[in-house]
Amino acid sequence: MADQYAQAGEGKRPTEIPVIRWEEPPEGPVLVLLDQTRLPSEEVELVCTDASALVEAIRSLAVRGAPLLGIAGAYGVALAAARGFDVDEAATALAGARPTAVNLAVGVGRARSAYAAALARGDARRQAAAAALAAARQLHREDAEASARMAGHGLALLDELLPGGGHRVLTHCNSGSLVSGGEGTAFAVALAAHRAGRLRRLWVDETRPLLQGSRLTAYEAARSGMAYTLLTDNAAGSLFAAGEVDAVLIGADRIAADGSVANKVGSYPLAVLARYHHVPFIVVAPVTTVDPQTADGASIEVEQRPGFEVTEVTAPQVQPAGAGGGIPVAPLGTQAYNPAFDVTPPELVTAIVTEEGVVSPVTAEALARLCAGSREAAMD
Amino acid sequence: MADQYAQAGEGKRPTEIPVIRWEEPPEGPVLVLLDQTRLPSEEVELVCTDASALVEAIRSLAVRGAPLLGIAGAYGVALAAARGFDVDEAATALAGARPTAVNLAVGVGRARSAYAAALARGDARRQAAAAALAAARQLHREDAEASARMAGHGLALLDELLPGGGHRVLTHCNSGSLVSGGEGTAFAVALAAHRAGRLRRLWVDETRPLLQGSRLTAYEAARSGMAYTLLTDNAAGSLFAAGEVDAVLIGADRIAADGSVANKVGSYPLAVLARYHHVPFIVVAPVTTVDPQTADGASIEVEQRPGFEVTEVTAPQVQPAGAGGGIPVAPLGTQAYNPAFDVTPPELVTAIVTEEGVVSPVTAEALARLCAGSREAAMD
Repeated sequence: MADQYAQAGEGKRPTEIPVIRWEEPPEGPVLVLLDQTRLPSEEVELVCTDASALVEAIRSLAVRGAPLLGIAGAYGVALAAARGFDVDEAATALAGARPTAVNLAVGVGRARSAYAAALARGDARRQAAAAALAAARQLHREDAEASARMAGHGLALLDELLPGGGHRVLTHCNSGSLVSGGEGTAFAVALAAHRAGRLRRLWVDETRPLLQGSRLTAYEAARSGMAYTLLTDNAAGSLFAAGEVDAVLIGADRIAADGSVANKVGSYPLAVLARYHHVPFIVVAPVTTVDPQTADGASIEVEQRPGFEVTEVTAPQVQPAGAGGGIPVAPLGTQAYNPAFDVTPPELVTAIVTEEGVVSPVTAEALARLCAGSREAAMD
Repeated sequence: MADQYAQAGEGKRPTEIPVIRWEEPPEGPVLVLLDQTRLPSEEVELVCTDASALVEAIRSLAVRGAPLLGIAGAYGVALAAARGFDVDEAATALAGARPTAVNLAVGVGRARSAYAAALARGDARRQAAAAALAAARQLHREDAEASARMAGHGLALLDELLPGGGHRVLTHCNSGSLVSGGEGTAFAVALAAHRAGRLRRLWVDETRPLLQGSRLTAYEAARSGMAYTLLTDNAAGSLFAAGEVDAVLIGADRIAADGSVANKVGSYPLAVLARYHHVPFIVVAPVTTVDPQTADGASIEVEQRPGFEVTEVTAPQVQPAGAGGGIPVAPLGTQAYNPAFDVTPPELVTAIVTEEGVVSPVTAEALARLCAGSREAAMD
């Protein structure tokens, strides 16, 4: 286990490198990210001095995961404001860096609104920048609290659906502390079950093409001392058939008003398998992931990513050879279909767990009630 | 397109390198294989001078695919006989090199029986060796003929199920000329549709962990000039949901007496998706793949392969770093679940296409009739 930390620089333990943090060295404020493209082999910090560097970090997936994207977007607006750049321009670029996760635009919007409100009150730019930073920090704190509450609600639901404990949970992609101001979404529920002594095994889908399961979820599971096993995404069917999966727990990048869930590609096939095998399929996401402006699954814009993520093999240690910086594993000229997300319709989702409570069965009405309650709470 | 042939040695076009061939240089007979682990970047021959070298080639997947394993196994027995090794010992080692594909044991058995029958007739060892070689060559020829007949039956079935043509076919793993004495099984059907102008698109699952789809099927599709698109295995769900798949065509490694189909891991999830989306799921395999000795799916032994195939990235050009000769992409010490195959129950299989005809619906009775007919034909 110790080997995986061998490359952490300067003798630091990896837990000392936060996923995201604001710093104010003499040269001016910066946003420091843990570069997630280099995990698990290297723990490297990426320092963003302006919003365009952060946009690039978001596009390259150095920072990723729906809740964390919201936090990063808010800090990005604060960074532009603190450094005297055009805040509206930075906000627009940040909000559009990736299209599917609604949290990104929500986080950007919160910091931008705080900045605009301060200016409207007659504050100086420096004070308005401080207001944007305060909004980002507030979102960061709220997300950490939301993680803890989702974990509590999620574990209670697991215990209710699967009395007797010893849960064998399958997860896809990465939804732990690397995507969050706290311990994450779906992963936080599994972690809560682990701490309560009720997680028998975490089945970790490797999550092609970018291997967030192998690289990130396995890394978080190992650090937490969980019993986990990695598998190729296509081996999940064999686990279901063998009765080895008690529940599927995944995060979400956007939840439409009708309860359709956009999440990492490969989630929908798991939902179909779960239904076929009568296994609960549970989505864990903060209320900010629900987008009332998106009516249904068909209205969710799914990001299409470059084909070289599929046609080439990349790893931090690989010497680039192909057009995408990796090693070609398919014939040159091969076209690839590479949607980053897929959409699971509400009828295949057993429950949506949020920090405000659980929606089950998943209906537009129940979701709307939850979001209304959440808005009221926010206005208290 | 030409680039993919750049590394073919000595100015040969790749079509001139057969997948398997028997040669008799002055030093003694050898079995020459196209090393499939090096495709598509390199076309390298692997020369086996004895059965143990062939066992290693089978285990490392240098030679693979159910029908081809049968042919290779038969030639392996002939090789042991021709070189004066213990034929029974070689046959046992070859038949046990991989457990799931029944064709391997069947092919080994045919050459061994021919050898034993010749000895029983009073032939000298040299004549018995020639009889084993003749049996291997006969199996090789029969498999090529079977390919052509499966392609014909399969295309007729596609046209019947999907009148109007313009088929969009999804396939998994590799089932073309690289697995066969001819043009293959499932891939041969897609190729026949292509030649008839009725294939709109071949969707190629990359097929983790060993990427036989990216490395081999894409290579064969490109060589044949087919319209094909590569995808990660977990993106197939999105294609089904978008109505982009008209049929699934896969091969088989073993078909139990009840019609359960063992094929490359990831086939079963496709069968479940196909059922959920009312898309035909068609298995194409020679009659030798049907094993009347295996009663049902639960009785099929599924090969478990080493975890490093999942935890490490390998490609011919990658400098080895991990225990399995690749580059680690998961934390050190990560356990992986890595079944090579999965089992699809007969109720999810729309049809089984063999050289003797089509079984649909798939029942034990219909399969038994087909096999009985085939045995009668073989005894004619």
